[in-house]
Amino acid sequence: MIQERLPSWKIDALLITTLENIRYISSFTGSSGIIIITPYQAIFLTDSRYAEQSKYEVKGLRIKIYKKQIEDVASLINKLKSKCIGFEGKGLTYAAYCKLKKLLQGKRLIPVSEDIDKIRCRKDANELRIIKKAINLAAVGFHKAINRITPGMVERDTAFEIEMAMKKKGAQGIAFDIIVASGKRAAFPHGKASDKKIRKSEMVIVDLGAKYQGYNSDETCTFVTGKPNKEQKRVYKTVKDAHDRAIETVRPGVKASYIDFVARGFIKKAGYGKYFGHGTGHGVGLAVHEWPNISSYHDDIVEEGMVFTIEPGIYIPGWGGVRIEDMVLVTKNGCEILTEMSKEMMVL
Amino acid sequence: MIQERLPSWKIDALLITTLENIRYISSFTGSSGIIIITPYQAIFLTDSRYAEQSKYEVKGLRIKIYKKQIEDVASLINKLKSKCIGFEGKGLTYAAYCKLKKLLQGKRLIPVSEDIDKIRCRKDANELRIIKKAINLAAVGFHKAINRITPGMVERDTAFEIEMAMKKKGAQGIAFDIIVASGKRAAFPHGKASDKKIRKSEMVIVDLGAKYQGYNSDETCTFVTGKPNKEQKRVYKTVKDAHDRAIETVRPGVKASYIDFVARGFIKKAGYGKYFGHGTGHGVGLAVHEWPNISSYHDDIVEEGMVFTIEPGIYIPGWGGVRIEDMVLVTKNGCEILTEMSKEMMVL
Repeated sequence: MIQERLPSWKIDALLITTLENIRYISSFTGSSGIIIITPYQAIFLTDSRYAEQSKYEVKGLRIKIYKKQIEDVASLINKLKSKCIGFEGKGLTYAAYCKLKKLLQGKRLIPVSEDIDKIRCRKDANELRIIKKAINLAAVGFHKAINRITPGMVERDTAFEIEMAMKKKGAQGIAFDIIVASGKRAAFPHGKASDKKIRKSEMVIVDLGAKYQGYNSDETCTFVTGKPNKEQKRVYKTVKDAHDRAIETVRPGVKASYIDFVARGFIKKAGYGKYFGHGTGHGVGLAVHEWPNISSYHDDIVEEGMVFTIEPGIYIPGWGGVRIEDMVLVTKNGCEILTEMSKEMMVL
Repeated sequence: MIQERLPSWKIDALLITTLENIRYISSFTGSSGIIIITPYQAIFLTDSRYAEQSKYEVKGLRIKIYKKQIEDVASLINKLKSKCIGFEGKGLTYAAYCKLKKLLQGKRLIPVSEDIDKIRCRKDANELRIIKKAINLAAVGFHKAINRITPGMVERDTAFEIEMAMKKKGAQGIAFDIIVASGKRAAFPHGKASDKKIRKSEMVIVDLGAKYQGYNSDETCTFVTGKPNKEQKRVYKTVKDAHDRAIETVRPGVKASYIDFVARGFIKKAGYGKYFGHGTGHGVGLAVHEWPNISSYHDDIVEEGMVFTIEPGIYIPGWGGVRIEDMVLVTKNGCEILTEMSKEMMVL
């Protein structure tokens, strides 16, 4: 599949170095490896720690073990007939690039980052099945934990309860450290769960995701402890409406930046523009953040099969914040919301 | 402190991009940021998600918010008088380097990777206190969980028990996915905990670490379920002796490669040389793997205050394996073993 694309990238070999792409291509789940693809062969290289494991996991690629990663990869490439070696510009550090370049003889190194980033963006049926399972595990875990959350509970303990519940249900892990940010801390869009106690009448942002068979889920619920006041209701409704309108725009052919424009425009119009700083969404799959990027800077065209988040938010320093995040799957004529938890205002 | 070192690196500004170094310098705990240091000022940049959080965490640096990371950093650098901009070659992707280089006007970009890697290698008293706490949390968690482990238990559940126990005791998280590899799977040095049941008379490798206030611990225990047979005893004793001898060599002034040579030589002499493929150890701190590297390829000189692992292993395909790992602190005249768990053969 990738082999066929080498000519269009004007290369006759491709070096794959990011773990997610390595897993996507080879099924290898370890933490160290490189793949070399030429029109005639595909080679997977790893270190001795993974010699046995790779025999079980890696199918359809020749397996080789390296001692010194860059040196051994360079000497292998030097034996190939290929002259133009594509590599992941975002998947190689500057230092590794320099080392490799120095060791290669009569070869050109050509970055092909963006094209590589895109290879995973359209999910197939099997990937969707796994992603849906990851989403379900997060939801089940969250519901199990939420029943035990009461004012007085510490943010960190709340995150721990959710994590345990997800793992007990079979999650391989958390997709990222669960965010629990309550009261004024809800103004930190990425506030890690802290030692702060959740108090009555606070907004609480919970951003969580499960990992299952390598794939991630990602969603955010904001709830309020006790009867919401006017401002809490107004901010919540603004975010919820921005979220809903953004989702309504999602369909094949639309620009990513347009989806962001709709969410941002709505929040701006409501007078909260300066309190929504981050992008509207991002792709989710083997990486928690992957192609496409749903932001004002990205004119990428949305395609059927993409899975990404829609997650507008309002964060008011000293007051708190609201974020509402769902994962959507782009369908033939629109999109399907994959996440299961309701995003109506939840009062605990 | 770092400002004083700029002239020796022949630079008049330094860009810090790895999260561990950013945390080390600024105390920032978030996931996105850059630091620029000149002889006259230190600036911390992050995105809007961390605008509030950075006000609380970052001390002694000017805080700025970027919208487009590389673009905004470049425009800030372009306003500086500095001409030679040092950067972390291992902390910037090739793609980011190219983008930055293109945007800079009349500036030179100079990689200073290795020197930067070393800034965190000697731990101060406060860091040691935190690391010891991380080690203690892992040990307490492990002991609590180990009592519940019996043949018939699934590897994954064992890992989960340990993780929960560590977190209940106050660990911020796991340092890495806990490895539980039993029976033949113990021949996978980095075998993730799987759905396999632990059976009687198996060697079980458990590699675990806790995270506390950003710092990590890392240690490995190998135990046997039921009375060990001759071969199990022999392999265990070989690894244990190699481990002990390597630790005896640790003192300021010794080469990292010599420590590896001692461990490897002993295992070779016992006839298991080809079954020990990985390095003997690595530094541990804000990163699980950091400077120094204790391997045959690294001639770095060991210094007082360094904290690293000693972790020889023997992995026999189809049979299983043993790894024994401790963390040591280099003292004035030798070293202190920081890990608390005994490494005598444990029979469950």
